[in-house]
Amino acid sequence: MITQQVITEAHNRIKPFVHLTPVFTSTSLDEIAGCTLFFKCENFQKVGAFKSRGAMNAVLSLTREQRARGVATHSSGNHAQALARAAKIMGTKAFIVMPRTAPQTKKQGVIGYGGEIFECEPNLRSREETLLRVVEDKGAYVIHPFNNFDVIAGQATAGKEFFEEINYLNYVVAPVGGGGLISGTGLSAKYFSPHTLVIGAEPEGADDAFRSMESGMIEPSQADTVADGLLTTVGDKTFPIMQETVKKIVTVSDVEIITAMRMIWERLKIIVEPSAAVAFAAVLKAKEKFRNKNVGVILSGGNVDVVRASKLFASV
Amino acid sequence: MITQQVITEAHNRIKPFVHLTPVFTSTSLDEIAGCTLFFKCENFQKVGAFKSRGAMNAVLSLTREQRARGVATHSSGNHAQALARAAKIMGTKAFIVMPRTAPQTKKQGVIGYGGEIFECEPNLRSREETLLRVVEDKGAYVIHPFNNFDVIAGQATAGKEFFEEINYLNYVVAPVGGGGLISGTGLSAKYFSPHTLVIGAEPEGADDAFRSMESGMIEPSQADTVADGLLTTVGDKTFPIMQETVKKIVTVSDVEIITAMRMIWERLKIIVEPSAAVAFAAVLKAKEKFRNKNVGVILSGGNVDVVRASKLFASV
Repeated sequence: MITQQVITEAHNRIKPFVHLTPVFTSTSLDEIAGCTLFFKCENFQKVGAFKSRGAMNAVLSLTREQRARGVATHSSGNHAQALARAAKIMGTKAFIVMPRTAPQTKKQGVIGYGGEIFECEPNLRSREETLLRVVEDKGAYVIHPFNNFDVIAGQATAGKEFFEEINYLNYVVAPVGGGGLISGTGLSAKYFSPHTLVIGAEPEGADDAFRSMESGMIEPSQADTVADGLLTTVGDKTFPIMQETVKKIVTVSDVEIITAMRMIWERLKIIVEPSAAVAFAAVLKAKEKFRNKNVGVILSGGNVDVVRASKLFASV
Repeated sequence: MITQQVITEAHNRIKPFVHLTPVFTSTSLDEIAGCTLFFKCENFQKVGAFKSRGAMNAVLSLTREQRARGVATHSSGNHAQALARAAKIMGTKAFIVMPRTAPQTKKQGVIGYGGEIFECEPNLRSREETLLRVVEDKGAYVIHPFNNFDVIAGQATAGKEFFEEINYLNYVVAPVGGGGLISGTGLSAKYFSPHTLVIGAEPEGADDAFRSMESGMIEPSQADTVADGLLTTVGDKTFPIMQETVKKIVTVSDVEIITAMRMIWERLKIIVEPSAAVAFAAVLKAKEKFRNKNVGVILSGGNVDVVRASKLFASV
């Protein structure tokens, strides 16, 4: 059970190691969206994404004995770098299973934080098998990217900070991948800002959370979207929290995601990755719902190759 | 004469109408540059550039009678939007002479702030003739983009804020176009942070300030660079202030500018225009000079077409 106190303790625990990220506003985006927007800029977070919060909390929550064995995960994304950084800070090792096809920049990011990479084939089975072998071999402690209560409590601190700074949000909107951020945000809203409704935003091409919320059971993700941070399916720890705390999931197309991303780049003058633009795309799509409300948007990360991103802009 | 009091008064005058922009830092850029960097983010300023400061101060400094006649300028860049915005806020008209070849987005920006555009041919003579005609016709008051003491005092407030927040800068580096920002920064350093040395940064393809500082007289700009905000030649009001307050001009190539711009985008996660990256490019180029020092960099603006920008990234 992640109580209010668990989140408060997680926040105090990680504060020395993560940024209190700024909240940005924009008159011109308010005009376009028809509401008053507040953007929580986790793209400025350590390693460029909110994932630093959960990974840091998970590593700090291990016992000294557990921590000494090192930590391990499989991830091709921001969690890999976040875990490697958290391990480095705490003086232990990180063993990261990554598909051999992962971008060189992501691998270098992990290595830059002293993480050790184990390559696998680019499919879930190979990832899991390789991780199992690494864990048997090294005795390392697995920190799952989202289906872990310490990780969820860590991600919840983004929402907690947001509500402490802006205490009159009618809505908060966050993207949904495996559900770590949205379930953490849901819990923080429940405890720290109960008048705020929580909306999840998901790509149409990976709408497992939307379908799972409809059916009441976890539906697999088909995973075809430009928002490459949101390909995963919600987990058995995140999904029940979402059922309890998330009001609604709004799905958006890739074109809507890319259009929203460009607006953020050109109007807010900041770099966000496609996955981070999904929440703003959802606000634009469901305009009527948000009209004249105070709407918080969590910009989850900013790790993107700028040349690849602008090919996306040119393509729509 | 722009005294310390003149700058303080300008700052108090414009404060309700412009942002106190944030200062960003980056461990990874510090490592790359070999010094401790502080970035003053004028890309987050109103209309996306420091130009809001000077234009606002100039319009606020007019008498009621002068202001009632409207204001005019020729500009294809950020000053045009900044002046239109300042005029709108003060309830008067802005008449902006722009080359007919100026990007549609820039024209829309001016119109969005209620400015009236007068098109001219894309050369200085046509600009000046058209402006003269507009002034005769409308009786408007001309606010030059940089060669105007109220504008210089307004631009000086960026440096003043910077020094008030970080009072231990060994250097401050700003880009040089017509010299409004660098001369204002020089004056603010002199009055508010006399231990800080002021460095100008200029594209090799528009190095009129560099050559002017060498020869002691204003040398015309040849104007061929990707940093399209820095094409102008220093003026007879800005240049003497530069001679008094600027320690040195560092010139950088277009490739160095584009490389620095990409680092800022990918590491700081913020959008800056090529002209704004020139100052950071100068820090990277003159690394030895800045080694282990506290170096302030003024990121002058963030108005850039993101697709055009990434074509630049792909080209180097």
